[in-house]
Amino acid sequence: MQINQNYLNLKDSYLFTNIENRVKNFQQKHPNVKLIRMGIGDVTLPLADAVVHAMRKAVDEMGGASTFHGYSSERGYEFLRDSIKKYYLAKGVHLNLSEIFVSDGAKSDIGNVLDIFGRENTALIPDPVYPVYVDTNIMHGRRIEFLAGNEENEFLPLPDASMPADIIYLCSPNNPTGSVYNKEKLQVWVDYANKNDAIILFDAAYEIFVSDDNLPSSIFQIPGAENCAIEFGSFSKTAGFTGVRCGYTIVPENLKRKINGEFISLNKLWLRRQTTKFNGVSYITQRGADAALSEKGLAQIRENIGYYRQNAKIIADTLSELKIWFTGGRHSPYIWLRTNGMSSWEFFDFLLEKARLIGTPGAGFGECGEGFLRLSAFGDRENVRRGMRQFKEIINTL
Amino acid sequence: MQINQNYLNLKDSYLFTNIENRVKNFQQKHPNVKLIRMGIGDVTLPLADAVVHAMRKAVDEMGGASTFHGYSSERGYEFLRDSIKKYYLAKGVHLNLSEIFVSDGAKSDIGNVLDIFGRENTALIPDPVYPVYVDTNIMHGRRIEFLAGNEENEFLPLPDASMPADIIYLCSPNNPTGSVYNKEKLQVWVDYANKNDAIILFDAAYEIFVSDDNLPSSIFQIPGAENCAIEFGSFSKTAGFTGVRCGYTIVPENLKRKINGEFISLNKLWLRRQTTKFNGVSYITQRGADAALSEKGLAQIRENIGYYRQNAKIIADTLSELKIWFTGGRHSPYIWLRTNGMSSWEFFDFLLEKARLIGTPGAGFGECGEGFLRLSAFGDRENVRRGMRQFKEIINTL
Repeated sequence: MQINQNYLNLKDSYLFTNIENRVKNFQQKHPNVKLIRMGIGDVTLPLADAVVHAMRKAVDEMGGASTFHGYSSERGYEFLRDSIKKYYLAKGVHLNLSEIFVSDGAKSDIGNVLDIFGRENTALIPDPVYPVYVDTNIMHGRRIEFLAGNEENEFLPLPDASMPADIIYLCSPNNPTGSVYNKEKLQVWVDYANKNDAIILFDAAYEIFVSDDNLPSSIFQIPGAENCAIEFGSFSKTAGFTGVRCGYTIVPENLKRKINGEFISLNKLWLRRQTTKFNGVSYITQRGADAALSEKGLAQIRENIGYYRQNAKIIADTLSELKIWFTGGRHSPYIWLRTNGMSSWEFFDFLLEKARLIGTPGAGFGECGEGFLRLSAFGDRENVRRGMRQFKEIINTL
Repeated sequence: MQINQNYLNLKDSYLFTNIENRVKNFQQKHPNVKLIRMGIGDVTLPLADAVVHAMRKAVDEMGGASTFHGYSSERGYEFLRDSIKKYYLAKGVHLNLSEIFVSDGAKSDIGNVLDIFGRENTALIPDPVYPVYVDTNIMHGRRIEFLAGNEENEFLPLPDASMPADIIYLCSPNNPTGSVYNKEKLQVWVDYANKNDAIILFDAAYEIFVSDDNLPSSIFQIPGAENCAIEFGSFSKTAGFTGVRCGYTIVPENLKRKINGEFISLNKLWLRRQTTKFNGVSYITQRGADAALSEKGLAQIRENIGYYRQNAKIIADTLSELKIWFTGGRHSPYIWLRTNGMSSWEFFDFLLEKARLIGTPGAGFGECGEGFLRLSAFGDRENVRRGMRQFKEIINTL
């Protein structure tokens, strides 16, 4: 028996373990200090009433002989796919129900989608980046090219003709930098992909934070994307579903590639993958997700997003006042700031010890993240205020 | 961009589509005939009260600021893994919490586990079989050997030294045949795997139907299995969770393989796979699964299993009375019967047209399934009674 030896090429991601260890050491030395956690990307507000109400009803249905639901379609219930279709229609994007695949979360789909691609493809991954893009390709033994994000391109790299790629990862609004591609820049990527027979895997997990209608919140708002892109959506940040688990993947019917003279539909390949290795999402979860997209639900979840966005503004305003370079915060829950000459980890320790504030060192997201730090706005308002007061004080001591 | 061309080698599984088409045609001709569905393997009884109660409470917690849960561990909450540990302890199997991985269902894990194995392995798959074992290996381009199940071996094939294998699939109680390996036969498999450095993927989805303590309901009841086996468990049949989605995979800490001189832990490989391509199961679902394993929950789900088992007995008794050869029914919700000289599909049509009864043609589960048919006991008592009365009548006309 042989294991998949590509796994031996994975670096253990020590990022969050490393953070936790440093925090533990600090707290042992200072047991009475209250730390402010602005590192994690997990939501903190409870589920919206509309969602709770719908899931409570669904639980009761599952307990009744005449209302019980067994296996659902691996694609997801039509009622939910129909709501997702309407959600996209409001963005000016027309989808067929057959192009929408409901899942237990974008992270699963982003990893699993690589099943339908050949190993000989080259993956093009921006740096800094969500580590899952890198690790899932290493597991397949795929060649990876990194595209540098930096201050010059505001962490929004554009195609580089010297870097031919088959699978291109784009995340906008970006994790970890919070930067957002505008339509012109995203059009450049779509045109590049179509010209080079590449596929764009577009991670739209943070799309609801886009507050400017001139900025794209779906790649399918860009002409030509239906011929080259797969989009991953999530209820995790949109509706606070990190602990409920629901996402969706959009694979256009037009997304085809010619193999041995015949056109193969990637939609059909993904359907085959999901019907073979997946068995659908809980009826209760799907009812909750559907309620989140109802008129009432959308109003409630947008109120929560507004709360996080206001937190982000408090962080951003502090940084502007301190003249610290940063991206994000406006159309994203993340703020990506320069660590003023210190290394990511030096600045992390500095914040921890002097400001009692926990961030995420940018170096944990890739080489190009060195010299930066990520702050998350998914927290309690009072903590964010206190955190930024303490941040300001220590920066002024420098 | 290249697709995974192994997908082009998949045969479309027309089985259930084919069944639905024939049923549709029949109903168009006979709109007033009430058909009895004994084909599908989906549960019909509602969730147990203990489960409904726990999930209702969990939904309310998710709606409260102080009781909300965000991301859970990809391994699953400790409260649920601890209940699974106790469930196995009652079978005489000692597990560490680190050996238990909670997931959204056994089907996902059975497909995804192949990620950690090399492509050069040969998979040994009994025939007839759950089609997912075959398709997931075709997707990886792995060599597959089939092991024939038949009347002589009561559809419980044993190792064949002329068929070297690296990955061995065993499903007991079996889907579709309902046959169960005894301890002696399972020991032969475990010894064979240990001798040949093979891994057994043991599908225990139907373990709760085992009503004889002398029969194994977990492969880890067999000495040596902790060095060669991974077990897949499911709440789908156990607790009626087909529409709720929860399962678990047991990967022993002792399961290691020597690669380039060093021992690699398959438990660590699976943990890495899950932390990279999976994000845990809904808190609400995990609370429901945990309640199913509580004292009250177990009593309630065993009552449901007893109901299905009684259905199975009604089917089995009818077949015995008619002197039709069959397996299963005693420790399984499935009965696998000989189609008396007709082909699987001829017998399917015969049952449909004459007895108004829908079964599943054995040929749909592999070449060795030809000449057999599967009946499912997951139905309503009155329908099963009526179905078997009608079955008896038409058999007597032969």
